[in-house]
Amino acid sequence: MAALKARNILITGANRGLGLEMVRQLVEIPYPNRQIFACCRDPDGPKSKDLRELAEKHPKVIKIIRLDVADANSIREAAKKVGSLLEKNGLNLLVNNAGVVKHTNLLDTSTEDMWNIFDANVMGPFTVTKEFIPYLRTAVKASGTPGMSCDKAAVINVSTYAASLASVDKTYPHWIAFPYNVTKTALNMMTVLAAIDFKPEEILFTALHPGWVKTELGGEGAMIGVRESIEGMLHVMSGLTEKQNGAYMDYTGKTLPW
Amino acid sequence: MAALKARNILITGANRGLGLEMVRQLVEIPYPNRQIFACCRDPDGPKSKDLRELAEKHPKVIKIIRLDVADANSIREAAKKVGSLLEKNGLNLLVNNAGVVKHTNLLDTSTEDMWNIFDANVMGPFTVTKEFIPYLRTAVKASGTPGMSCDKAAVINVSTYAASLASVDKTYPHWIAFPYNVTKTALNMMTVLAAIDFKPEEILFTALHPGWVKTELGGEGAMIGVRESIEGMLHVMSGLTEKQNGAYMDYTGKTLPW
Ligand SMILES: NC(=O)c1ccc[n+]([C@@H]2O[C@H](COP(=O)([O-])OP(=O)(O)OC[C@H]3O[C@@H](n4cnc5c(N)ncnc54)[C@H](OP(=O)(O)O)[C@@H]3O)[C@@H](O)[C@H]2O)c1
Ligand SMILES: NC(=O)c1ccc[n+]([C@@H]2O[C@H](COP(=O)([O-])OP(=O)(O)OC[C@H]3O[C@@H](n4cnc5c(N)ncnc54)[C@H](OP(=O)(O)O)[C@@H]3O)[C@@H](O)[C@H]2O)c1
Repeated sequence: MAALKARNILITGANRGLGLEMVRQLVEIPYPNRQIFACCRDPDGPKSKDLRELAEKHPKVIKIIRLDVADANSIREAAKKVGSLLEKNGLNLLVNNAGVVKHTNLLDTSTEDMWNIFDANVMGPFTVTKEFIPYLRTAVKASGTPGMSCDKAAVINVSTYAASLASVDKTYPHWIAFPYNVTKTALNMMTVLAAIDFKPEEILFTALHPGWVKTELGGEGAMIGVRESIEGMLHVMSGLTEKQNGAYMDYTGKTLPW
Repeated sequence: MAALKARNILITGANRGLGLEMVRQLVEIPYPNRQIFACCRDPDGPKSKDLRELAEKHPKVIKIIRLDVADANSIREAAKKVGSLLEKNGLNLLVNNAGVVKHTNLLDTSTEDMWNIFDANVMGPFTVTKEFIPYLRTAVKASGTPGMSCDKAAVINVSTYAASLASVDKTYPHWIAFPYNVTKTALNMMTVLAAIDFKPEEILFTALHPGWVKTELGGEGAMIGVRESIEGMLHVMSGLTEKQNGAYMDYTGKTLPW
């Protein structure tokens, strides 16, 4: 696997599923003074037990940060905290991974579900991006090299093949998730627009589909495990350049149709 | 122009811009016992003056209905009112036309703007569709003919070329509207999913781009007038069949890339 050389990395929803596995694999890649900000909404709760255990083994590398993507105040608090730990190196890689699903069709989706899922899947990455942009800018300044990469300054939005408008007639009948698909497609548009907005500043934005993965969200019928998914994701991320700014790809590096 | 034979038609945001022009052109197409439900959020206010004057000239055809797409209660009230006027014929054509824009990039978009624009552009069409589905179902039953069409039972979501993920690198730099693009892309996904959900019931869903039109929203630099846009839209709508269920097209009938 091509080793990711990002020094400072932040991952939302890092307490279980794909986020936790990403932290797990990243600590195995030796890199001097790396800091991994493993964010979760309830650091002391039972759902964060595995992350706490992992962090205890790597206390210098892993910092657990409280961050609820559906709570703007919590995002601001997290940004302050992380900012104080980053110093002049800035944040190289931000992974908007936290996400929620609900398996309903249009008529069975409640107004409340729509708002909540929009909050987590769209407003979350939106607010996190806004609050952490100053640190990504610091990383650009600190890098001194031209071009774009996940080692320098990048935002990876964890999208899904279910957000592909061109493919949804193939996916939706087998995995009905109306509010999830709608909000993840909105996240794809956010990724593309951010890629345009921040291109002059050399901050990379890419939307990545992790594959259909056996997690709580992916379900038991999923096709691959977290290990394979995250190995692929990290490999793809380590190879991203300005050519993939605004792209929509899967964990094998394949470009997906919008 | 191929004449639209939908008997009962509802249009949101019908007090000005494209919505008002659609009402205007529809009253000119003779059709027995047609009812046009021209919805707007402030029927008695100054912004609805032109619609009131038009309705006074065609009192049998045009019914002005109070409907604020960002207010679920108002949508429910409107559905009750319209339901009482429809009787056994049901609603043949629902046009989700109301929409709002804000010209900001990602960083300049406030949290409040994101919520408000999501409310109008996504939750509006979502809730309106849910509340009026019973009357579209009645229209399917009343029709007795197989297949799909705007004459029988259809929902047209007024989308925009700015929602095209594949084209946004060409449109966004000239017309920056981050929260608009994000929410209209979500509306496109909603259209495609609804097209799948309601296919067995023969209710057609299509997303239509009206062109870049000189209205308050389109701005003065726009390329065409409301007359040309709506002539095109009505022509395209009159020709839609099950082949265009879930399609994304412009006012000339061209399919747009996602
Ligand atoms: N698994 C798949 O097949 C698949 C496919 C395509 C895309 N994805 C995407 O991959 C990402 C990770 O999913 P996963 O499969 O790992 O799902 P998962 O095992 O269900 O984990 C979801 C993670 O998101 C967190 N989260 C949810 N709401 C949050 C909030 N408001 N604030 C902070 N964290 C929150 C959860 O934290 P809690 O423990 O606090 O709930 C958890 O850590 C998601 O964006 C998902 O859409 C997954
Ligand atoms: N013009 C273009 O170039 C263009 C291009 C692509 C797509 N579109 C789409 O076409 C549709 C119509 O736009 P337009 O150009 O006619 O814009 P417009 O002239 O600005 O009219 C917008 C209409 O939407 C209504 N509206 C906004 N928020 C509402 C709410 N909460 N409840 C009810 N009605 C509401 C407005 O009512 P009030 O008078 O009460 O504000 C007005 O009737 C929109 O969906 C727009 O996105 C337009």
